[in-house]
Amino acid sequence: MIASEIETPAAVVDLARLEANIVRFQKYLDKHGIVNRPHIKTHKIPEIAHMQLTQGAAGITCQKLGEAEVMVQAGIRDILVPYNILGVQKLNRLIRLAKRALISVTADSSVTVLGLSAAAHENGVHIPVLVEFDTGLKRCGVETPQLAAELATLVESSPGLQFAGLMTYPMNENTGPFVEEVRKLVEPKGMEVACVSVGGTHCMWEAHQHREVTEYRAGMYVYGDRYTLESGAMTLEQCSFSIRSTVVSRPSQERGILDAGSKSLSSDLLGLEGHGLILEYPEAQIYGLSEEHGHVEFSRCDSKPEIGEVVTILPNHCCVANNLFNEVIGVRDGQVEVVWPVQARGAVL
Amino acid sequence: MIASEIETPAAVVDLARLEANIVRFQKYLDKHGIVNRPHIKTHKIPEIAHMQLTQGAAGITCQKLGEAEVMVQAGIRDILVPYNILGVQKLNRLIRLAKRALISVTADSSVTVLGLSAAAHENGVHIPVLVEFDTGLKRCGVETPQLAAELATLVESSPGLQFAGLMTYPMNENTGPFVEEVRKLVEPKGMEVACVSVGGTHCMWEAHQHREVTEYRAGMYVYGDRYTLESGAMTLEQCSFSIRSTVVSRPSQERGILDAGSKSLSSDLLGLEGHGLILEYPEAQIYGLSEEHGHVEFSRCDSKPEIGEVVTILPNHCCVANNLFNEVIGVRDGQVEVVWPVQARGAVL
Repeated sequence: MIASEIETPAAVVDLARLEANIVRFQKYLDKHGIVNRPHIKTHKIPEIAHMQLTQGAAGITCQKLGEAEVMVQAGIRDILVPYNILGVQKLNRLIRLAKRALISVTADSSVTVLGLSAAAHENGVHIPVLVEFDTGLKRCGVETPQLAAELATLVESSPGLQFAGLMTYPMNENTGPFVEEVRKLVEPKGMEVACVSVGGTHCMWEAHQHREVTEYRAGMYVYGDRYTLESGAMTLEQCSFSIRSTVVSRPSQERGILDAGSKSLSSDLLGLEGHGLILEYPEAQIYGLSEEHGHVEFSRCDSKPEIGEVVTILPNHCCVANNLFNEVIGVRDGQVEVVWPVQARGAVL
Repeated sequence: MIASEIETPAAVVDLARLEANIVRFQKYLDKHGIVNRPHIKTHKIPEIAHMQLTQGAAGITCQKLGEAEVMVQAGIRDILVPYNILGVQKLNRLIRLAKRALISVTADSSVTVLGLSAAAHENGVHIPVLVEFDTGLKRCGVETPQLAAELATLVESSPGLQFAGLMTYPMNENTGPFVEEVRKLVEPKGMEVACVSVGGTHCMWEAHQHREVTEYRAGMYVYGDRYTLESGAMTLEQCSFSIRSTVVSRPSQERGILDAGSKSLSSDLLGLEGHGLILEYPEAQIYGLSEEHGHVEFSRCDSKPEIGEVVTILPNHCCVANNLFNEVIGVRDGQVEVVWPVQARGAVL
């Protein structure tokens, strides 16, 4: 099928750009001796994860156990789940995975550590645990090096667990000093901070300036979106992911309505104005979204689209847009080459 | 399984409330002689659609053909797709559906009407078409009664099509005068505005004040959410849909992190502050969302949750939250009674 016949709205990936993005960042990390552990929450597609591993990634990152279950079934054997795994059901699922693959996790509280240890010890399983710390995002993560060192010590002394290092998101100017402090506190006890795992596509090209970093978890770098474009981490020509959409209405001279709404693009703004960039009409503004309609102002555009015209939208946030589609269509040289089911879509558990 | 053992994050429906919501609105419309054509984009679950039909709905509304395909496969035979259906592929799908069920659509341009007519005529199929008009939302819809009358006349004269009436969203003070004007223009030509179809859960109890309205398309009334609560259309005790979530981190005295983020709750704000109402901690504020984390400020709460505690979130917008889950869990008297796959989830085509 030729790409222009793809029915809309559709999530489309330019395969040549996707491959180039995977190679480019891998080479960068290789050059600087940083381990690559890409985050698959962006694409949720086993074949893309395998492409990342083939190019040199040491393993992958999954945000939820459900994603990891899909990826283990796809044959992947080294997965970090940077999440506090809590509760009997999730611990049971973690143990089952850990019998089939190397699964490491994170923790930011003793509650999490004690639960992990009880489950691992009881089942004769060994789980590496990274201590999560907060560099200012105010999400998960212990807030002081002292708390990090205490938790690391608890992990190290807990049956079934091994203190594997530190983890944070995003990497920033606080990362180095925090890690340094933790090292000072734990190394005298004979413990090693073997891994310092950080993330963030927007700051990925600065990784080499952070000598403390040993491992990088980027997700969006495979696709790119309006956020990564605005951040300067990727160029428009590198962005591989887009939403194809049809103009279904032109109710006035200035307005147009697309067949992609919040159930295709998501409502994520990420600090941006408008809900995506229309490549054919860069001056247009997607000023509003209904669930299945995008509301566009074309007044600043010299030419305006006809009803039925197909446009290409760079979404604000590729990770959530990708998660809204049943499948992603891979295109090369104007032809559809592959249709990938988004296998870990909706894997929130 | 008892409801308290449901793994989180989960989309949960209180079945008794769901049933009561369906009955309550049906009785209201019946009392006022208004046809009920509920919008299934909210739940996307065939069994709930059948519950609505059993209680007296004349048919259903689907926003996209993909939803209608799921519902026709589930045995539903009267569906309005209030959308401009454009392009060969979509017209072919519409024709296939129209051979198996009564499918009506909307149009707001001659481009749409001519496409529908060519496809219907060629295939010997008969398609009722409502003309969509704009009451101020600035989405689809012709902007003047004159344009509506012209398009109605085009529909009526187009082979394979029948002018079935007028459609808008939402119902408001502009609806009546607009419809009145169109009637004045088309009735002298021997045409009838047989149906005036309007929508909006937030204004559903005002339908009887609009004498022009013959049919109502409400979606969210089955579930309810923070938006319908704030609009005054539903009480908290009527809301049947919620997201169960676990507190996975308490990085500070004032903050807590949930296992439900933008991939469970969506980023839809709908004019509200914060990303949902935590029923057990109504003073808490979900001030931010990552994809798999909800960031909560608990400083205004007298008591604060422990790590591992499960909470109940009323999301801002039930339609998009429901669409993020693979399944919805129906609960009655504290027991899980049914697990519904969200069959038309992701049906954006």
